Amino acid sequence: MKSSAHASGVNRRVLLATAALLPMPALLRTKSALAQEAGSPLASWNDGPAKQAIIDFVRATTDRTSPRFVLPEERIATFDQDGTLWVEHPMYTQMIYCLDRVPAVVATKPELKDVEPFKTVLSGDREAMAKLTLPDLEKIIFATLTGMTTDVYADEATKWIETAKHPRWNRLYTELTYQPMLEVLHYLRANAFKTFIVTGGGQDFVRFYSERVYGVPPEQVVGSGLATKYGYDKDGRPILMREPKLVLNDNDVGKPEGIYQMIGRRPHAAFGNSTGDQQMLEYTGAGDGARFMMLIFHDDATREYAYGPAQGLPDTKVGTFTQALYDEAKKDGWTVISMKNDWKRIFAFE
Amino acid sequence: MKSSAHASGVNRRVLLATAALLPMPALLRTKSALAQEAGSPLASWNDGPAKQAIIDFVRATTDRTSPRFVLPEERIATFDQDGTLWVEHPMYTQMIYCLDRVPAVVATKPELKDVEPFKTVLSGDREAMAKLTLPDLEKIIFATLTGMTTDVYADEATKWIETAKHPRWNRLYTELTYQPMLEVLHYLRANAFKTFIVTGGGQDFVRFYSERVYGVPPEQVVGSGLATKYGYDKDGRPILMREPKLVLNDNDVGKPEGIYQMIGRRPHAAFGNSTGDQQMLEYTGAGDGARFMMLIFHDDATREYAYGPAQGLPDTKVGTFTQALYDEAKKDGWTVISMKNDWKRIFAFE
Repeated sequence: MKSSAHASGVNRRVLLATAALLPMPALLRTKSALAQEAGSPLASWNDGPAKQAIIDFVRATTDRTSPRFVLPEERIATFDQDGTLWVEHPMYTQMIYCLDRVPAVVATKPELKDVEPFKTVLSGDREAMAKLTLPDLEKIIFATLTGMTTDVYADEATKWIETAKHPRWNRLYTELTYQPMLEVLHYLRANAFKTFIVTGGGQDFVRFYSERVYGVPPEQVVGSGLATKYGYDKDGRPILMREPKLVLNDNDVGKPEGIYQMIGRRPHAAFGNSTGDQQMLEYTGAGDGARFMMLIFHDDATREYAYGPAQGLPDTKVGTFTQALYDEAKKDGWTVISMKNDWKRIFAFE
Repeated sequence: MKSSAHASGVNRRVLLATAALLPMPALLRTKSALAQEAGSPLASWNDGPAKQAIIDFVRATTDRTSPRFVLPEERIATFDQDGTLWVEHPMYTQMIYCLDRVPAVVATKPELKDVEPFKTVLSGDREAMAKLTLPDLEKIIFATLTGMTTDVYADEATKWIETAKHPRWNRLYTELTYQPMLEVLHYLRANAFKTFIVTGGGQDFVRFYSERVYGVPPEQVVGSGLATKYGYDKDGRPILMREPKLVLNDNDVGKPEGIYQMIGRRPHAAFGNSTGDQQMLEYTGAGDGARFMMLIFHDDATREYAYGPAQGLPDTKVGTFTQALYDEAKKDGWTVISMKNDWKRIFAFE
């Protein structure tokens, strides 16, 4: 699965062009046969209430004799990204990108060299960097993500995504996606659900790899977004310049607000892992009929990380899973899954 | 086509549930057979360069031996709505909705009765209403489209859409869609294009009927949008309140900016009819490979309306088609179609 996901652009183009040649029914038969061969749709999940809850939800919503049946067109599922679909430690991946970009930005704007917070980032002093404040980080975000055309940003970010590696595993960040969650995405799509990513991170960044990595096309990625400004370059060619202005803060209440703006339908299923996803799950659960809400609890320091004040784990300030969120989940019937106990394996490369 | 489009919610639900039961290959075969029976994919178009240009574009982008071949996943087409997919005279339909809502709003807020512009709207004096300024109209828009939950707005607007009629034809507004353009939408989708509406009007309003009327699901509607605010009702149930704050003005430069934000891919085809669509067509045309840009010129006063300063028609200030836009279209190779000459029929009911 991962090797084809990492096929080169050229190979992927050929692959898709070939697929386009097949008459559609043949293509569907092939897929269906493959699914049967693979056996269980959630192979990386341990048997237990969490896995069963997902299967029960899908069976009920796709069985037209069930009172919980949902029309295919209304089968919308939304997924947080950081900590839900891939690793978010030690820091949100896009923030690592921004920090990595600082030297290149300073090279074109030398006046920033001795100005904070850029000076600290250039020093490489990890202890000092860990103390950067939110306004500091915002300055870094605006300096590295804006002021260029959308095409230039796509080039810069794509190159990084294809080469930068996570220090703990020495693997591409896109390899640090959770195999059990890729299976949930696939299982839902195989049952006519339309899967959306609803991330607090930058939606443009995620769109550069969402289709290849998650099977989610760019137009199904909702996330925090910066403004663009339409204009023309010196040759009169239309361009979009990236502007230092937030148009959607897709965290907390911003998630249901962003879903209303960008999708226009209430999800029937929502997946998250932190207080930033709380309102998305509440909004999902407030709809009529079948709804499924799931939170991932990071309790596996051996295979991944263990964090979140719920159940006494340390609060790392990244993807906070508070005791209050845990209590709300239990009260409202959300499924809380334990990475340690519910996932047979975490990464495809294991 | 129109009769099934207007089937009741219950019948449509049954229809879709039945379709969901069919094995997919059979469903596809049926559709394909129907398409063959219907003959030409653009039956309501007169033969000529405009019709041929659409067919040539689709053939080139779907033929993998063509240098202009486009991968299925990248086949994005965007359509303006007012004046491109349905009638925009004498006024944008959503503005008529807002004016119609004024009495109901005043009934709940009697203090507005003697305040302008509400007083003028209540008077029913069409001449005075025609003189309302943009700030007046904005007051009416905010008073009628905000201050309620998204669910209440959906109920109010849906009821209106299902009953209000256009004075000239005495037909539902949703019947005043252009049959030739419905055929273009269908033809593109039959060739794996994903069709989006990119409207200057309110996207939430269009989403209430887009799937039924255009076959475009709500999540593929981009348009001007008002903010919502997440909160809880008196019973603690999550709600989204509609706020008097514009988050996207999806006109002019707002169209490519909105496409980047909401879709995240550059369209390969774009359809419009006014200066409000100019930048969307420019942005579409600035991409590599096969691109198709089309403008509809309203020159048929007998069957619809004739307006736009281009070619000496009156400037009605609705959907303005200027001489400068006409000149740009000619210079850049955009297809300009004449409703009078290129369309065999305009409405399905003709």
